[in-house]
Amino acid sequence: MTVPNHFELLATDGAARTGRLTTPHGVVRTPAFMPVGSAGAMKGLHWRDVREAGSDIVLGNTYHLMLRPGAERIAALGGLQRFTGWNGPMLTDSGGFQVMSLSALRKIDDNGVTFRSHIDGAKVELSPERAVEVQRLLNSDIAMQLDECVRLPAERADIEQAMQLSLRWAERCRRAFETAPAGYMLFGIVQGGDVVPLRQMSARALVDIGFHGYAIGGLAVGEPQAVMLATVEDVAPLLPADRPRYLMGVGTPEDLLESIRRGIDMFDCVLPTRNGRHGLAFTRFGPVNLRNARHADDPRPLDETSAWPSTRDVSRAYLHHLVKAGETLGAMLLSEINIAYYQRLMADIRDAISRGTFVELCERTRAEWAEGDIAPRRD
Amino acid sequence: MTVPNHFELLATDGAARTGRLTTPHGVVRTPAFMPVGSAGAMKGLHWRDVREAGSDIVLGNTYHLMLRPGAERIAALGGLQRFTGWNGPMLTDSGGFQVMSLSALRKIDDNGVTFRSHIDGAKVELSPERAVEVQRLLNSDIAMQLDECVRLPAERADIEQAMQLSLRWAERCRRAFETAPAGYMLFGIVQGGDVVPLRQMSARALVDIGFHGYAIGGLAVGEPQAVMLATVEDVAPLLPADRPRYLMGVGTPEDLLESIRRGIDMFDCVLPTRNGRHGLAFTRFGPVNLRNARHADDPRPLDETSAWPSTRDVSRAYLHHLVKAGETLGAMLLSEINIAYYQRLMADIRDAISRGTFVELCERTRAEWAEGDIAPRRD
Repeated sequence: MTVPNHFELLATDGAARTGRLTTPHGVVRTPAFMPVGSAGAMKGLHWRDVREAGSDIVLGNTYHLMLRPGAERIAALGGLQRFTGWNGPMLTDSGGFQVMSLSALRKIDDNGVTFRSHIDGAKVELSPERAVEVQRLLNSDIAMQLDECVRLPAERADIEQAMQLSLRWAERCRRAFETAPAGYMLFGIVQGGDVVPLRQMSARALVDIGFHGYAIGGLAVGEPQAVMLATVEDVAPLLPADRPRYLMGVGTPEDLLESIRRGIDMFDCVLPTRNGRHGLAFTRFGPVNLRNARHADDPRPLDETSAWPSTRDVSRAYLHHLVKAGETLGAMLLSEINIAYYQRLMADIRDAISRGTFVELCERTRAEWAEGDIAPRRD
Repeated sequence: MTVPNHFELLATDGAARTGRLTTPHGVVRTPAFMPVGSAGAMKGLHWRDVREAGSDIVLGNTYHLMLRPGAERIAALGGLQRFTGWNGPMLTDSGGFQVMSLSALRKIDDNGVTFRSHIDGAKVELSPERAVEVQRLLNSDIAMQLDECVRLPAERADIEQAMQLSLRWAERCRRAFETAPAGYMLFGIVQGGDVVPLRQMSARALVDIGFHGYAIGGLAVGEPQAVMLATVEDVAPLLPADRPRYLMGVGTPEDLLESIRRGIDMFDCVLPTRNGRHGLAFTRFGPVNLRNARHADDPRPLDETSAWPSTRDVSRAYLHHLVKAGETLGAMLLSEINIAYYQRLMADIRDAISRGTFVELCERTRAEWAEGDIAPRRD
């Protein structure tokens, strides 16, 4: 059965692409960065600021939401958009990744994964069918297949086993999704770690099954950036050019530039908000660590040319003070500043690809970053 | 020397008053509620929301600000308004109250108070003259005299000693303030605990010294509400009718109604933001504890007739979820909702006093509160 296509490719520049993905809750301009609102909220940001910063779509974590407040409850309250007040496109992960990293006593077999909630210790079963059902209850515009993700480095046999299991789950998710209303989407996830032949096998099998879009999973899980980018470069060309490609859990602004250059359309990452809570700002001049004492008497804003009010108007001295004093407002301002920076970068990238000037944009962006002071936290 | 008057009394209704206090950074409509931005930030709120909620003036804590980031630093950065971005009227306390409650190893004598910073243990001296100097460096529109505040219940001898010391400090603060530019104000603070003759002595002596306005201190420090209100009722008539009267550290919405009825013009309190962080909303229907499980499936907002967007649009189910999940957004929304409620109440009160319908407003407000579910935390 053919899977309908909601993605329109508008322009390419080398392997870089820009397009439009139409979801039931609105249009997503690609390349797109999805801020992460794990448990139905963006840490430190009002939804209006997430939107005003230029976000078209956000990511919700199925694992968190199914445990609390519960998928059936959210469905009864009208779905995730009505529940949260984020009235735009939303992608949910399958829950699998966080089962592996957050829950205790997990057991994985062909039927899915069984685990104990980190909140109350309750035993929960997540099968491929249940993963799709939960995401449908949440009313997410884009659901992800259940998969098994292996931390790198890992043995080839373990990587292969997880990849094969993920493929069997992909087929079951695809079948379970067939009753979803028109316009909603399901993405398959390419696994295979850092082993090129396994990645190729996974990608081809997923394309045979057929999905609305394709994700590359199992990266940004401990491997060097060069390994991640090499894998992206190998896998992206194996995916259908007319479907969106989503690199999961990535990344730094540099990661985004390099991955877009290799043909990626969508990203999600906690880096802008998590670093914001730790006192780090992403700016046009690179990352700025506001904890540093040299900002204490500095009346300058982070970037006086920025269109984002907090980036343009709030002094480094005030941000430094808020961070040092542990004031919530510091985390709120820096999270908002960082999301705004990421979305401004994505807008500039989309524009450059349309004009065929993506390489120049990358060069100019890197030259400006050279003024930054420390590397952002990746963990 | 006569102290200039910047207060204009517009209307009275019984002992209740409404007026305008003109400061260097703008006009304050009274009765006024001042949200507390202790260390140069309002916990959980952006300044724009503090303003949009209807706040004319906010309070900053001299104790916090002098220790971090430091008064001289804030002065070099253009004062508290430019430093924080709150470009409106600001009142600062003298620091004395928090020296007593937060710092270790304090020593009080006629010269002032010596203490160790709770942040880094540094030894700090706060004399009446330094308290005024610090507040001038902060550029606060309204400075408070240094005083000694005694927790109740207390022995009469201790209350009298602190009251007399506060009077001596009042004179020294008044002299120290004489070089302040036109338009800036200094308030004296009536002390005397729950002992009427001491309160009378304090009030008369302060009026003889002469201040731009008068505060009633040493209340809401452990005594029953009836004792607080009886003291307010005794003291308010002793203060000049043409000067603003400020009841420090008060209070619940009920406290505000009762104090305004006795002639108070200004208040400050952490209750709306602190309770917001603990999951409690102040609403037209009384306090609502969002932690309560009965809200988990409730799609209704807190008050669908409210003009404040978050009060009107955000469901109780979502607020309950955010509070239970410990999401920052829950504290952010409830703090904002509570400040908006307090300021809406103050606006209604000002309007009612102008129309001579303050008693009816109090009755209607109390009838609506009867739907609330638990008492707010006072601590």
